[in-house]
Amino acid sequence: MRKVKVYVTLKENVLDPQGSAVEHALHSLGYQAVSHVRIGKYMELLVDENVENMDETIKEMCEKILSNPVIEDYTYEIGEVVSE
Amino acid sequence: MRKVKVYVTLKENVLDPQGSAVEHALHSLGYQAVSHVRIGKYMELLVDENVENMDETIKEMCEKILSNPVIEDYTYEIGEVVSE
Repeated sequence: MRKVKVYVTLKENVLDPQGSAVEHALHSLGYQAVSHVRIGKYMELLVDENVENMDETIKEMCEKILSNPVIEDYTYEIGEVVSE
Repeated sequence: MRKVKVYVTLKENVLDPQGSAVEHALHSLGYQAVSHVRIGKYMELLVDENVENMDETIKEMCEKILSNPVIEDYTYEIGEVVSE
């Protein structure tokens, strides 16, 4: 099995109310040095190494299930081999 | 300003119903090669470089606001300098 890390972020021009809320919370606790908070998703999964065309499979999964390509971008890393 | 990336993940022994739901969805679409899906958060923020003790400040923010230390772990990366 290989560990795969997927990062999903809102596209730049999409509003992020959750990020704004977190930014306000940080400011009100005194962390004025922070700005441009954007919140996305981080996913870890294991993928069987014997799968055909791992790269293509992961892209498909990202586009169909793990992200919403209308408003989100994704990147992924295929990481180390791990025993299940 | 420096770009900071924060990764928040559920601790290993904490159940992840959202991850299970995504895993089921992937299996039902035919992606049987996938297992152990865990879902976390990925946050990007800018932090003023002139802040005192940036490392300590980010840790504090992670523990107070960005994660729930009872059930979540966090890691962060202090990245490149960006113009606002």
